[in-house]
Amino acid sequence: MILPSFYVDSLIKAALAEDINYIDISADYLIDEAQTNEAYFVAKADGVLCGIDVAMRVFEMLDPEFSKKVNFKDGDRVKKGDVIAEFSGHTTLLLKGERTALNLIQHMSGIATATNEAVKLCKGTRAQITDTRKTLPGMRALQKYAVTCGGGKNHRFNLSDCAMLKDNHIDAGGGITNAVKTLRGKIGHTVMIEVETRNLEEVLEAVSAGADIIMLDNMSNEDMEKAVKIIDGRAKTEASGGITLLNVAEVARTGVDIISLGALTHSVKAFDISMKMEK
Amino acid sequence: MILPSFYVDSLIKAALAEDINYIDISADYLIDEAQTNEAYFVAKADGVLCGIDVAMRVFEMLDPEFSKKVNFKDGDRVKKGDVIAEFSGHTTLLLKGERTALNLIQHMSGIATATNEAVKLCKGTRAQITDTRKTLPGMRALQKYAVTCGGGKNHRFNLSDCAMLKDNHIDAGGGITNAVKTLRGKIGHTVMIEVETRNLEEVLEAVSAGADIIMLDNMSNEDMEKAVKIIDGRAKTEASGGITLLNVAEVARTGVDIISLGALTHSVKAFDISMKMEK
Amino acid sequence: MILPSFYVDSLIKAALAEDINYIDISADYLIDEAQTNEAYFVAKADGVLCGIDVAMRVFEMLDPEFSKKVNFKDGDRVKKGDVIAEFSGHTTLLLKGERTALNLIQHMSGIATATNEAVKLCKGTRAQITDTRKTLPGMRALQKYAVTCGGGKNHRFNLSDCAMLKDNHIDAGGGITNAVKTLRGKIGHTVMIEVETRNLEEVLEAVSAGADIIMLDNMSNEDMEKAVKIIDGRAKTEASGGITLLNVAEVARTGVDIISLGALTHSVKAFDISMKMEK
Amino acid sequence: MILPSFYVDSLIKAALAEDINYIDISADYLIDEAQTNEAYFVAKADGVLCGIDVAMRVFEMLDPEFSKKVNFKDGDRVKKGDVIAEFSGHTTLLLKGERTALNLIQHMSGIATATNEAVKLCKGTRAQITDTRKTLPGMRALQKYAVTCGGGKNHRFNLSDCAMLKDNHIDAGGGITNAVKTLRGKIGHTVMIEVETRNLEEVLEAVSAGADIIMLDNMSNEDMEKAVKIIDGRAKTEASGGITLLNVAEVARTGVDIISLGALTHSVKAFDISMKMEK
Amino acid sequence: MILPSFYVDSLIKAALAEDINYIDISADYLIDEAQTNEAYFVAKADGVLCGIDVAMRVFEMLDPEFSKKVNFKDGDRVKKGDVIAEFSGHTTLLLKGERTALNLIQHMSGIATATNEAVKLCKGTRAQITDTRKTLPGMRALQKYAVTCGGGKNHRFNLSDCAMLKDNHIDAGGGITNAVKTLRGKIGHTVMIEVETRNLEEVLEAVSAGADIIMLDNMSNEDMEKAVKIIDGRAKTEASGGITLLNVAEVARTGVDIISLGALTHSVKAFDISMKMEK
Amino acid sequence: MILPSFYVDSLIKAALAEDINYIDISADYLIDEAQTNEAYFVAKADGVLCGIDVAMRVFEMLDPEFSKKVNFKDGDRVKKGDVIAEFSGHTTLLLKGERTALNLIQHMSGIATATNEAVKLCKGTRAQITDTRKTLPGMRALQKYAVTCGGGKNHRFNLSDCAMLKDNHIDAGGGITNAVKTLRGKIGHTVMIEVETRNLEEVLEAVSAGADIIMLDNMSNEDMEKAVKIIDGRAKTEASGGITLLNVAEVARTGVDIISLGALTHSVKAFDISMKMEK
Repeated sequence: MILPSFYVDSLIKAALAEDINYIDISADYLIDEAQTNEAYFVAKADGVLCGIDVAMRVFEMLDPEFSKKVNFKDGDRVKKGDVIAEFSGHTTLLLKGERTALNLIQHMSGIATATNEAVKLCKGTRAQITDTRKTLPGMRALQKYAVTCGGGKNHRFNLSDCAMLKDNHIDAGGGITNAVKTLRGKIGHTVMIEVETRNLEEVLEAVSAGADIIMLDNMSNEDMEKAVKIIDGRAKTEASGGITLLNVAEVARTGVDIISLGALTHSVKAFDISMKMEK
Repeated sequence: MILPSFYVDSLIKAALAEDINYIDISADYLIDEAQTNEAYFVAKADGVLCGIDVAMRVFEMLDPEFSKKVNFKDGDRVKKGDVIAEFSGHTTLLLKGERTALNLIQHMSGIATATNEAVKLCKGTRAQITDTRKTLPGMRALQKYAVTCGGGKNHRFNLSDCAMLKDNHIDAGGGITNAVKTLRGKIGHTVMIEVETRNLEEVLEAVSAGADIIMLDNMSNEDMEKAVKIIDGRAKTEASGGITLLNVAEVARTGVDIISLGALTHSVKAFDISMKMEK
Repeated sequence: MILPSFYVDSLIKAALAEDINYIDISADYLIDEAQTNEAYFVAKADGVLCGIDVAMRVFEMLDPEFSKKVNFKDGDRVKKGDVIAEFSGHTTLLLKGERTALNLIQHMSGIATATNEAVKLCKGTRAQITDTRKTLPGMRALQKYAVTCGGGKNHRFNLSDCAMLKDNHIDAGGGITNAVKTLRGKIGHTVMIEVETRNLEEVLEAVSAGADIIMLDNMSNEDMEKAVKIIDGRAKTEASGGITLLNVAEVARTGVDIISLGALTHSVKAFDISMKMEK
Repeated sequence: MILPSFYVDSLIKAALAEDINYIDISADYLIDEAQTNEAYFVAKADGVLCGIDVAMRVFEMLDPEFSKKVNFKDGDRVKKGDVIAEFSGHTTLLLKGERTALNLIQHMSGIATATNEAVKLCKGTRAQITDTRKTLPGMRALQKYAVTCGGGKNHRFNLSDCAMLKDNHIDAGGGITNAVKTLRGKIGHTVMIEVETRNLEEVLEAVSAGADIIMLDNMSNEDMEKAVKIIDGRAKTEASGGITLLNVAEVARTGVDIISLGALTHSVKAFDISMKMEK
Repeated sequence: MILPSFYVDSLIKAALAEDINYIDISADYLIDEAQTNEAYFVAKADGVLCGIDVAMRVFEMLDPEFSKKVNFKDGDRVKKGDVIAEFSGHTTLLLKGERTALNLIQHMSGIATATNEAVKLCKGTRAQITDTRKTLPGMRALQKYAVTCGGGKNHRFNLSDCAMLKDNHIDAGGGITNAVKTLRGKIGHTVMIEVETRNLEEVLEAVSAGADIIMLDNMSNEDMEKAVKIIDGRAKTEASGGITLLNVAEVARTGVDIISLGALTHSVKAFDISMKMEK
Repeated sequence: MILPSFYVDSLIKAALAEDINYIDISADYLIDEAQTNEAYFVAKADGVLCGIDVAMRVFEMLDPEFSKKVNFKDGDRVKKGDVIAEFSGHTTLLLKGERTALNLIQHMSGIATATNEAVKLCKGTRAQITDTRKTLPGMRALQKYAVTCGGGKNHRFNLSDCAMLKDNHIDAGGGITNAVKTLRGKIGHTVMIEVETRNLEEVLEAVSAGADIIMLDNMSNEDMEKAVKIIDGRAKTEASGGITLLNVAEVARTGVDIISLGALTHSVKAFDISMKMEK
């Protein structure tokens, strides 16, 4: 699975334009343009790698003579000290690309690593970890891709590809039952309807109304367990709200199908990778 | 201080395009286009606000009839429960903008809040907190702005506006002394030279060479204290490497002028703000 | 339901840039810039209107003093001779926008009108008319929006938001049953799986494999009727391939849920609307 | 003759971005990235091919290892069953590009084929077939190119490169004679003036005023014949308005130089081409 | 005559993005955001004004509360000391826009002024001054517009809208006569053919071949006079090559219709205008 | 030192789009697409070359089979008649790129040549020549790069990377002393402060306030000499205002460190280079 090159290239261009402006006054004024160098990426912690192709692409875009040997691929686990990739190119261009490449791979690996921790905590349950729409401008595809590399699944991408009924929609639609019915008559046949519920009465109404997915929003674990029983496979169940790595395992044991975690993409801790140059 | 509108608008457009695609099937199919609503942003924690103008701009771009009353401005401290802004507009457009607006203000306030914590920990010392180039694609200006709202200062924006000599530059330039001399002959008169040093011999050479700023890279606090004494005001001193909120106060007490923290922008924890609608 | 303004504006800019280049040598050199004029759009045939807001937006983008009175809205039926909108603005700017505005509204109304004919032909059956991905570059949202204005439904928007298994996927996945199972383990919970089938054995396997939607690809009406019975509500059924306004009614009578028509967007006949100016 | 690569690439990127979004969940999750495949394009009808380079470019942009053997070039006649091109690449990338490539080549070949039918109907007369400005946003160059591949000629590209005087211009300019004279004093020497006329008096005035081209707008064939005689080679004559494949031959026999057909680009019927994969 | 707003806005955005980056550290850190100011543009020399709307637009894009009183319009003559426009807005925004606004208006007025000098030197002859394609990237429309404000005419805008036959085309086309004939059979009816000639034999062949315009390339004034007589009104004549303000009057007296000057746009001398602020 | 490829490519695309539009009707209709040709660039005057890589890139972007032998590099002196580069490619593509390539290299070499003349006039003094922010939209990086190729230095790139205090800032900041002090507390540690002064009192105050750079704005040479003595190395001195090639040598002899010349970029005289084709 690869992200579309035009999307990746366009993000990289934006990042390089910000970072280089027009010259690298340190490198361009001191280092011979013709000088080449060998370099490598090394993991500074244990985690799940993501973004190695994107990071290598940074250098390829700057240097047509860039060459590489990649030792790990997206989704692989790496350990502190692992050499992720070895590569060579013009020294000035390696230096111009370094920060942009690291910023991308560290962000993506940070997401993949955190996702993977959540996935591991839910092992043995039916619960799948998913992301949300809590992403950064222009980076949704990159961030959602990183979630899948960590073993998570993707929730809806945007407001067009899945319906999600919250208070306002339900009020405007005349209650859960009517809203689901009205909407079903308008949306395309490839689109699911998810209903946000805050208590068991709403759960009951949503499942009767034929919701495809029922979100259990900020419910207690006890209520979620009950909701799962009430729904009994007639709809998918999604736990959401206030879930972190500290309590995700307990939530998973309530029997829900899906646990969505905003923090996977809105509160990313960069995964430490550094670039070393041979000379 | 305001970010340029064309920059902000362009980030918002990218975010909205990702998030809406072409319609909001939940809102557009259920809620009358003419319906209007009142809404407000409320802080869910204590911290430093940043991004309120950016967030409001999201709605203004979607809805020409949007109106607002903003109670706090960027850089203000907010407390859990504070109503940050009250506004009104078309219900469907408020819903279409909600996620994008919150994603931006939560990210920016997260940066401002973390920066401010670091700044407070250094109170009573001469140390100033600065950001780095460890930012996300297309978001450098936004992130650096948020750092200033938290009371931090901005380090160089890009590779063109300040020289920073690392190993490779120094080796290529024939040692610190020669490299600084060569570079001084080539750069513009508005550009400073910073030299990365890893031990006191390098510090000594850098200060003699006339570096404007000397980075003390991953040095022990003891060495940094000695370096500050050696330099003795002839150059600015910058502590960098492995500094977090846990040890920043101690580092500040070494007497350095500047402490640069990559985590301010590469490992942002979103600051929790939510949007409530009246009906 | 409105298309996002940034999307519409960006299409209009592209169209105006192509059409005007830098000046309108006929109007700019002959007509006084200050002259204003009244104008109106009149339908030259019977059909379903679509794109009136988009067309008006063309003039608004050119002329801040443009004002309008719109008599019909998207989705309304218009008859030959109906005055769709009356408006006024600077003469030179009305002339500069005329072609772009008409090109857009005629194309969109053409789609809405053709869709509506198909919808009417299926009246009394359960069949819904949908579009496909056979659209023109940059215009998918506009075209899909026009389909809904004609009473049709939207099929998947892109390759990320609904799975569609064709020969290649099925072969690579080890047959229908295995492919559906594998895929179900990887896709997000908001995504449906559609399987393309060419005969009743494949239909049987697809329904047993748990496909959400089964496409009956280029089947005879007899086979489609049988397929509907075999599937018996366990999956949605979609007729596709070689369906036109000439045979859509018969296809609808086979009992399928969905009929997808590529021609709605790949072979559009512009709906004739003209602009008249008062002086 | 080739379209500029930057223009073509930019249209293709827009189309791929719409069609793929971030992943192809069907192909990326089921088919091994390393798998390669052979494929070919086959004509499903008789017509004039256009867009083969554009379609091949779609795959080249996605897959650096794509290779091709092209059997027909733009402007060639193809027959139902003809294999237009044979190519190979990575299976997942062929699938990701298929829809975009076909959408483009079918649209362009549709235009070339229809144009060619009009051209053939005018054989033996002096009449040349041209397009108009009735094109789709961002696609004018592509559409006009397709017209030339079908044997047609291009009318003016935009409002800057040829003057066309309609009612409003003529009224503002003080009648045909004055308007032509005024305009001649202002436009560059490479620009022609066309005057729209609706009756023989206007024809007479336009030819006397020195118009380069005289449009005979919605005139009867009898009037057009008379107009051609009146003009007698002193200006080019262009028939326009309500002309279709049904009556174009008769119009051509009136002796006009040019027949412009909006339908060539505003009402395109896609030419059927399909892509087959070997495995 | 006004340049399209989307074109102007896009040039201004590019200029502001370059010039401001993210903040104006001088103004944003020292001047109260709420402070407003009055300012004016004053001519520092005599010349022809061009770009006043573009310059004002810079401030309008930065400051919604900007207001202005414009005393001269594009094409007007201004004298040293003339107050071109008086305006007011937020001080920080006036300062942010100042450089961009002046860069644009000074460049455009520089072109208009130089053009006007050439036009005045040709007074009393039939010669018209035109520009060429020797323009700067992205600025062709702006520069050509400025030429018209100075009283010049525009030559062809691009390679699509007028044919120009040079050596290579003529050789490939089998000589002037054949090349013109071949080309006439392929180009649209709104397109003229210009032939470059270097001696009187070529002039003779070009006029016989039916060229619309004959360029007299780097010919002596004597030869140009002869050429004009040979051509005798059967084609337009254009003098080109090595013509400056020093010799343009003499060239004009040869009787040519057109004199094209590359220097008008490739060697622009900025016209001095400065901005004064009240406080 | 090379400009970032994404920046250069994007400027070139803009220029080619303007210049070609969709086809080159002269070349595309007359010359066989397969024909190749050899060509070369020849200097038509003596000067400093700049932009040869950028010019070659124009052809590389149009023609994948373009090949070249470059005889001079940016910054080299060339003499009238020197063959700068010899290259070959498809004839039609060489013709399509010719104007864009020449426009760029002539502009850039014009800047480098003029800069170099100023540099030579200051030989033997300490004065360095720098550019200003008086550049053209989108071309600042290109223009500043050309200044360095001519031996000049770059002044600040934008309003974010160096502070420059003029009247308005000083008034708002409460006088030079206070303004410098306030600003020093807010700007990052990599940013210098320049103060504009108009007389020796202001110079005295600026140097006492600790300004890094003191601009001597439109001062007489006598005053500049005095200012240099007053400042006595405590700040860099920059002469600015009304300096041309006629008086730059005298200004240099006042002892200032820096002379900034707006004309280097706002009043560029294109350096004459022409392209010759072999057949």
